[in-house]
Amino acid sequence: MEGSGAYTVVDGHKMTLGANDFVLTPNGTWHEHGVSADGSTCLWQDGLDIPFVNAMEANFYEVHPDMNQAVGHEVNDMTRTWGNPGLTPYGESWKHGYSPMFKYEWAPTYDALTKYSGCTAGSPFDGVMMEYVNPVTNGPVMRTLGASMQMLRPGEHTKAHRHTGSYLYHVAKGSGHSIIDGKRFDWQERDIFCVPSWAWHEHVNGSDRDDACLFCLNDLPVMRALGLYREQAFGENGGFQPIL
Amino acid sequence: MEGSGAYTVVDGHKMTLGANDFVLTPNGTWHEHGVSADGSTCLWQDGLDIPFVNAMEANFYEVHPDMNQAVGHEVNDMTRTWGNPGLTPYGESWKHGYSPMFKYEWAPTYDALTKYSGCTAGSPFDGVMMEYVNPVTNGPVMRTLGASMQMLRPGEHTKAHRHTGSYLYHVAKGSGHSIIDGKRFDWQERDIFCVPSWAWHEHVNGSDRDDACLFCLNDLPVMRALGLYREQAFGENGGFQPIL
Amino acid sequence: MEGSGAYTVVDGHKMTLGANDFVLTPNGTWHEHGVSADGSTCLWQDGLDIPFVNAMEANFYEVHPDMNQAVGHEVNDMTRTWGNPGLTPYGESWKHGYSPMFKYEWAPTYDALTKYSGCTAGSPFDGVMMEYVNPVTNGPVMRTLGASMQMLRPGEHTKAHRHTGSYLYHVAKGSGHSIIDGKRFDWQERDIFCVPSWAWHEHVNGSDRDDACLFCLNDLPVMRALGLYREQAFGENGGFQPIL
Amino acid sequence: MEGSGAYTVVDGHKMTLGANDFVLTPNGTWHEHGVSADGSTCLWQDGLDIPFVNAMEANFYEVHPDMNQAVGHEVNDMTRTWGNPGLTPYGESWKHGYSPMFKYEWAPTYDALTKYSGCTAGSPFDGVMMEYVNPVTNGPVMRTLGASMQMLRPGEHTKAHRHTGSYLYHVAKGSGHSIIDGKRFDWQERDIFCVPSWAWHEHVNGSDRDDACLFCLNDLPVMRALGLYREQAFGENGGFQPIL
Repeated sequence: MEGSGAYTVVDGHKMTLGANDFVLTPNGTWHEHGVSADGSTCLWQDGLDIPFVNAMEANFYEVHPDMNQAVGHEVNDMTRTWGNPGLTPYGESWKHGYSPMFKYEWAPTYDALTKYSGCTAGSPFDGVMMEYVNPVTNGPVMRTLGASMQMLRPGEHTKAHRHTGSYLYHVAKGSGHSIIDGKRFDWQERDIFCVPSWAWHEHVNGSDRDDACLFCLNDLPVMRALGLYREQAFGENGGFQPIL
Repeated sequence: MEGSGAYTVVDGHKMTLGANDFVLTPNGTWHEHGVSADGSTCLWQDGLDIPFVNAMEANFYEVHPDMNQAVGHEVNDMTRTWGNPGLTPYGESWKHGYSPMFKYEWAPTYDALTKYSGCTAGSPFDGVMMEYVNPVTNGPVMRTLGASMQMLRPGEHTKAHRHTGSYLYHVAKGSGHSIIDGKRFDWQERDIFCVPSWAWHEHVNGSDRDDACLFCLNDLPVMRALGLYREQAFGENGGFQPIL
Repeated sequence: MEGSGAYTVVDGHKMTLGANDFVLTPNGTWHEHGVSADGSTCLWQDGLDIPFVNAMEANFYEVHPDMNQAVGHEVNDMTRTWGNPGLTPYGESWKHGYSPMFKYEWAPTYDALTKYSGCTAGSPFDGVMMEYVNPVTNGPVMRTLGASMQMLRPGEHTKAHRHTGSYLYHVAKGSGHSIIDGKRFDWQERDIFCVPSWAWHEHVNGSDRDDACLFCLNDLPVMRALGLYREQAFGENGGFQPIL
Repeated sequence: MEGSGAYTVVDGHKMTLGANDFVLTPNGTWHEHGVSADGSTCLWQDGLDIPFVNAMEANFYEVHPDMNQAVGHEVNDMTRTWGNPGLTPYGESWKHGYSPMFKYEWAPTYDALTKYSGCTAGSPFDGVMMEYVNPVTNGPVMRTLGASMQMLRPGEHTKAHRHTGSYLYHVAKGSGHSIIDGKRFDWQERDIFCVPSWAWHEHVNGSDRDDACLFCLNDLPVMRALGLYREQAFGENGGFQPIL
């Protein structure tokens, strides 16, 4: 979200991190965070599946015996190996339930949204939205957590719908507001807000000139895997909620 | 392979083509090729599964009733929509047995090989190799045809192996030679050569300074889907064939 | 568990039920239970995923507009169609996340355990155990609930282990006891007991002459689908817990 | 087809065989056939994928170093373990591309068709048909060969259709005739006939009192896996071919 020189290490793979980058520290992996030695300060949003895993009584916790793990690979190797469009490394197998592409950078993400926005009408409820995926499955980045980035085009006001699943938003770019169960919530870059399960919601880009981008972290993979996903469009008032 | 202004249309999706781009015209799709009106001449290599489909007695052929199809989408829309690393368009489903990413361009392919080569030891038999994949499945681009691009690093001489499946090579970059069942075949950019099923083969980059890239079209998806793939390393002479 | 003349209707498919039969009423299906008109009384154990679905805030409830649904198929048709070993009905597709074989009868279940017990050493922790499966996937009968039947051979005393997931047992046949986190629980036919997540447990058949059978309902499908399943053998004391 | 005392051994698993039983000797397994020592003579139909595998240049052949393999399991163990409707052995994994249920007996097959026929209208083209499946996948018994058994009810005359794929029939029960590309072929128990790819065909049970059963071996798994399956109903003359 802020700062420079940040890095994360996951099972010996070190990744440098910039603003709006998305990095995975999946269930069961050794992971640690840090900043380069020059004294910079970084802020990030940490999204966890701990409430869910605790509810399932399946949580385990362990501190690395050496406190820090050794870095055993080239920096950013997992993104360089797995993050190539339409190409997979020959002969590399990946059997874990989470994505081998541990880091998803902001620049190619915004570039992807821009390219895609030029050839789609978008979703009436979400504008131009892309899901972060495990490239091995085209499924979610983790089994318990999903993530997406959506672009609200200049002036866009999406229609309201509701669905099962709990959604946490982080404003990656721009400003605007969302209407959640009839109540308006204004937001700007780096704000965080949430939409609970089955709450009506619609999003509004506050600018007529610039796009706005919302990062979202959710439990949609759980809902889908277990057949619990349901969705409903708001049928009245042209699809827009009256503000309470 | 050569020229400019080429395009291909597949089921109403138009794609511009440059040198070393890889474009799909899958089984059962309307497809046509052309060049822009300025009189340029283009050459391409066409790889077909017709011998196999004929052997299965499952071939169908039909001419479009209007001779040409209407273009119904933005140019290059399928690559802009599906060709984004680690991101999938939300809510778009794709049920066909072939890749929705109809075109794989040379520049991002070479960029991917370069990035991957920096963090892998590569394969002893194939150097730094990536498979073109259907982004929805991470599987082959078509059910009957697979494709890959491999980089032989400066001075690289791979070890010999053999496997089931029939392989057609097109030299995308550089020059060198391959030894196939003990016989040497020299190649340079735009040459085409083949390795039959179960033939021993090894590849040599002729340059100590530049990398060489081999595009390959093969029936590996058939071999894998039907459990017929087998592979064997050449065990003697340090893994290199004596030249006959 | 007891009585005769019981039946269940699921989405228009009527099933007759006998003792120890296992019937599904999956999430999202119309379902109702009854007994034939002759006045018999039946008892059954009802196993629900409601705590989990409520925790996910994804519960929906609806009463059938006609109070009762029409039976639109031959009685027991789903078991007759889908419950045939090694054979699937040609051209019938099934896309739901739950098994089309709505009823699993006791007689073929016990017969299966008997046949299987003759050619397996069994599991050190569970004796001769089989999972009820969706024949279309060989996976769980429902996405949120799994079920199994296990046979403890005469005199069998299994070794202790623990695993994530919550397990409800119903004693289908015989008598004996289980040791759960060091405490002994005696059981006989039709008793119900449970093993919480990560609790050590071992089972003992109390008879040296007859087998005992335990039906189990669990959330193993959730654990597996989300990568949360873990298992550990009790390493000390020859694999048996000291009784507290 | 005829005789008694036959057996087949596949990778150390011995199976006794009776009339109309279906046994697998998959690609890549050690297999041998025999009869018990009492001097009986048996006949069977052997269906092979050799023409296909040869065309793919992927055939391998090897004689067992001991000429005969040791039997290492209980007789018929694979059918006793895997051939139980709606139940799978807990903790047994199976990773091969072919069915672990090496033998499919006639009695439960005919019983399944009888049960299924009581609750289906059947297919207009095939009567009451069931596919032999790998219980682990509900897919074909082998990747290159599929098999089915179909019941023509008393007096049944199916409508004509054609599809890609090559089909070999063995008459398991009853008598009648089939019309293939306008030509009539009479058949009775133990006859063998074939339907080539894309040939029109319809089947007629010659009896008004008894059902007739046709076993079929085909390359449908190849057609499906590679997206080459197509089907067309005969549109004229009420769906019946004129006999040439």
